[in-house]
Amino acid sequence: MHEDTKTYMHSVGEKAQQVSRIVGCAEASVKNRMLIKTAQAIEDRRELLVNENQKDLESAQKKGLDPALLDRLELNAKTISSMADGLRQIAALSDPVGAINDLSYRPSGIQVGQMRVPLGVIGIIYESRPNVTADAAGLCLKAGNACILRGGSEAFYSNQAIASCIQIGLEQAGLPVECVQVVGTTDRAAVGELITLDKFVDVVVPRGGKSLIERISQEATIPVIKHLDGVCHVYIDGDADIEKAVRVAYNAKTQRYGTCNTLETLLVAEAIADEILPKLAVQYQQAGVELRGCQQTCEKISGCLPVSEQDWCTEYLAPILSIRIVSDLDSALDHIAKYGSAHTDSIITEDYSRARRFLREVDSSSVMVNVSTRFADGFEYGLGAEIGISTDKLHVRGPVGLEGLTTQKFVVLGDGHIRD
Amino acid sequence: MHEDTKTYMHSVGEKAQQVSRIVGCAEASVKNRMLIKTAQAIEDRRELLVNENQKDLESAQKKGLDPALLDRLELNAKTISSMADGLRQIAALSDPVGAINDLSYRPSGIQVGQMRVPLGVIGIIYESRPNVTADAAGLCLKAGNACILRGGSEAFYSNQAIASCIQIGLEQAGLPVECVQVVGTTDRAAVGELITLDKFVDVVVPRGGKSLIERISQEATIPVIKHLDGVCHVYIDGDADIEKAVRVAYNAKTQRYGTCNTLETLLVAEAIADEILPKLAVQYQQAGVELRGCQQTCEKISGCLPVSEQDWCTEYLAPILSIRIVSDLDSALDHIAKYGSAHTDSIITEDYSRARRFLREVDSSSVMVNVSTRFADGFEYGLGAEIGISTDKLHVRGPVGLEGLTTQKFVVLGDGHIRD
Repeated sequence: MHEDTKTYMHSVGEKAQQVSRIVGCAEASVKNRMLIKTAQAIEDRRELLVNENQKDLESAQKKGLDPALLDRLELNAKTISSMADGLRQIAALSDPVGAINDLSYRPSGIQVGQMRVPLGVIGIIYESRPNVTADAAGLCLKAGNACILRGGSEAFYSNQAIASCIQIGLEQAGLPVECVQVVGTTDRAAVGELITLDKFVDVVVPRGGKSLIERISQEATIPVIKHLDGVCHVYIDGDADIEKAVRVAYNAKTQRYGTCNTLETLLVAEAIADEILPKLAVQYQQAGVELRGCQQTCEKISGCLPVSEQDWCTEYLAPILSIRIVSDLDSALDHIAKYGSAHTDSIITEDYSRARRFLREVDSSSVMVNVSTRFADGFEYGLGAEIGISTDKLHVRGPVGLEGLTTQKFVVLGDGHIRD
Repeated sequence: MHEDTKTYMHSVGEKAQQVSRIVGCAEASVKNRMLIKTAQAIEDRRELLVNENQKDLESAQKKGLDPALLDRLELNAKTISSMADGLRQIAALSDPVGAINDLSYRPSGIQVGQMRVPLGVIGIIYESRPNVTADAAGLCLKAGNACILRGGSEAFYSNQAIASCIQIGLEQAGLPVECVQVVGTTDRAAVGELITLDKFVDVVVPRGGKSLIERISQEATIPVIKHLDGVCHVYIDGDADIEKAVRVAYNAKTQRYGTCNTLETLLVAEAIADEILPKLAVQYQQAGVELRGCQQTCEKISGCLPVSEQDWCTEYLAPILSIRIVSDLDSALDHIAKYGSAHTDSIITEDYSRARRFLREVDSSSVMVNVSTRFADGFEYGLGAEIGISTDKLHVRGPVGLEGLTTQKFVVLGDGHIRD
């Protein structure tokens, strides 16, 4: 079986690379037709999708998988419509490929600019949500890339059914069907093969839990766009507007618990702690959020548990919040530099100079002033859609939209220019 | 010794990370003062530099190292002045750090933009040229990064002497001396340690031969900005201007043999081969360039040797040229896609549509029309200086200037905005 998988994945990679030249130069109208026709096929084949999904759901139930996973796995009228709408939205985005920036004359007389071009072949590895198959295929294709999609084995039938709709879209647009390949084996060895196909694949984007991403990063011989922890901070400065501070700090924690841009550690300036912490604590506790504080915090809030060193580094993804009272902005910056995960951090202040320092000095993918961390999102930032949020520093940082799936090449125009 | 080196490199990495927050937020005037003071120190300590360099040269001679290496190793009045001038040029470049692009309002009312920020800590690994110590330190520092420099052991004394000038520059600018650390051991294990310091180092830039770069890429647990082969092509189209074609193809091969942007394979459209090849062959042969051609080429040029399959993939870095006659643009594109190294490729043509297709369809870091491939260079492109030429697709592609040593973070401004 393993040898077969190796041969199979090699052939998938080779085909992807072959067609990447074609999709890389495809006009926007052709790519958009593919997206719209795929959306149509998904709606037309609603019944097939639900039936195939049912097989996955049944076997997941038999295996006793947990309800949250079953929920993510399910395809129904609503999730199917939203997949189709997602593809139409990608079709509506402007095509990043081929755009040339700042073509300008150099002293030698040559003109130099940079053209945005596809990365080539993108491998996406994801877990239970079958809608990722449509989303990821749409984003990769619109950015001019061939892609290889490897979803979770628990969603195998659902993913194959979505793949059949994508094939229809590609055919109707006149694009090679190998532009999007959904891996047709549940053999786990396929992942190991995919992430070492450095001859054919230009980048791997894992979407899933931290352990999946860490394992892939360690074993891949291809660059990986990673999305690790979001240990996000809100720092309430001594000159914060109390009403805004309470509103933002409450929203950042409680609007959704399971997302990477959710607040995990609240830092409060000593000067304002007495005024703001009791107000906030009441709201958090009414919402059922467990509070874990430094000693000073525990003294001010009844029912607050003592925080541990480990808590400061923890992405709870749950109704738990760490709270620390800090002396001033410098202490807050030190705390974030030491314990943060460089994802998203926000200051609440009316003080101009401290806002300016926070923006410059915090080294995170999103740095905010008087905004809930929950806004760190491709749609909210105007990227149109996102394939993930990068916690890497190189290539792309923060929400990754179409542009993050491209690169640039230099274009140089002349008239027989030579170097002396 | 090995255990000592491990501890030593760990401490170097830790210090670099600590000071990276300071240099990352340093104002341009402070960084420029460091560059100018270092340039001054290099000129003031000319005698020390020459004396220390003499030790390296003597031991290299004793070891019987080849004359090209001795040449690269030597510091003299001219190379010392040019190091100092290089630093002053970097000081004159505008500071990329902190620039915010396109800060604009989103429908929610938040303002979103991207701020250019340093990468953090950069490790540079290089071979015999001691001037890299000054260049690399200057570029990394100007881009707001701390750096760790590991030069070749054959240049140890020269590098330490340059390091002492850099320390003076840092001190006189009021920056921590750990902003630039030149590794103070010749133990080879230091390289292995440096490229696995993922806790402290954000990116590694190896500068040297292909084997060094490949080894580092394989062993590093940190992202590497690579500079591999330059198998560069010139394609002379059927509608090329003969005079321009001869001029460019001759210059691209002969202006310098040992550079990565030198022409290695000449592709000629069948329609123009009879007219152009004899003219070019005379010039190449007079310059002492060995010609290796496809069968058709050998029939047209006397003294042309038969080319092998391996030649098409070879970066000669020598007065040797592969020549192939192709039927048309499509065959040229196929050849470049199959054998090229995605470095720099140029078409010579007066035909508008074929120029347009070549620019779009060739997937290389530099794609040119009627320009010698020798122009693929950071100075010629207006980057001001370059730390290398990236043959990677992710993060930075082609000549790498200050901007390639930075990344971007999102900045988000609001007024108490929360998500519903």
